[in-house]
Amino acid sequence: MPDIIHRIAIRAPAAKVYEALATVEGVGGWWTRDAKGRSAPGGTLQFMFHRPDGTELGAMEFEVLELKPEREVRWRCTGGPPEWIGTEVAFRLSREDEQTVIAFGHRGWREVSEFTAHCSMKWATFLLSLRAFVETGKGRPAPDDLKIDTWN
Amino acid sequence: MPDIIHRIAIRAPAAKVYEALATVEGVGGWWTRDAKGRSAPGGTLQFMFHRPDGTELGAMEFEVLELKPEREVRWRCTGGPPEWIGTEVAFRLSREDEQTVIAFGHRGWREVSEFTAHCSMKWATFLLSLRAFVETGKGRPAPDDLKIDTWN
Repeated sequence: MPDIIHRIAIRAPAAKVYEALATVEGVGGWWTRDAKGRSAPGGTLQFMFHRPDGTELGAMEFEVLELKPEREVRWRCTGGPPEWIGTEVAFRLSREDEQTVIAFGHRGWREVSEFTAHCSMKWATFLLSLRAFVETGKGRPAPDDLKIDTWN
Repeated sequence: MPDIIHRIAIRAPAAKVYEALATVEGVGGWWTRDAKGRSAPGGTLQFMFHRPDGTELGAMEFEVLELKPEREVRWRCTGGPPEWIGTEVAFRLSREDEQTVIAFGHRGWREVSEFTAHCSMKWATFLLSLRAFVETGKGRPAPDDLKIDTWN
């Protein structure tokens, strides 16, 4: 089962990183400004993506599976691109050298495709956006996200 | 078999992207300044990595497996971190919307670990460095590479 995994460290307390992952306002600061829903176990989150000109790029829906303060945030995709349905997105936090390390995983892809490769690269840039958001207060959530290829 | 895969597009002709991948000088512009060897089928490439203070971080050696102008560059790791030995790094180029798309793969990992996740994130930042190098002439090769976690 092919997985996307990344590792990044942030110079901030785990509580602050957790807040950026476990609240709708937090995710709105680094992934997409158009974030809605209820971030609680069993709750549903909706993330919409638009191009800079306002046209819709896509919408995603997740069920919140796990919220462990300062430790873990885990969602299951229930709406969005067909390849994403049923996959899980997880952020596991740990402390090392006075930084908060995120072990990121987007797991459960049924098959690998060029779209998986696109998403892997795109997640990496969103994790850099998350780090900038937590460390400086300014991330690059959609629609101001870094475009990485001909698709987005 | 777990793979690292990424997709990125560069606003430049395939010949220019290929040159940055298929020559020692090219790779020195975006991966590590300390690049040596002979970039020809069957040739050996050596890449050394240093910290900004000059201490050595690691060294890698690759056999060149494939060099198809404007199409593909593929190497096999013959020296470096134990996890890398025997793995293959491939860059496949195609044209789309007047950009050159790179399908990047680092394949053949025997197992997935936190180190794989580190390398996945690090490759993403080096692909951004490659794009900047080709589009603007200025990449971020080691030792000026973006540090992504507590390891490098």
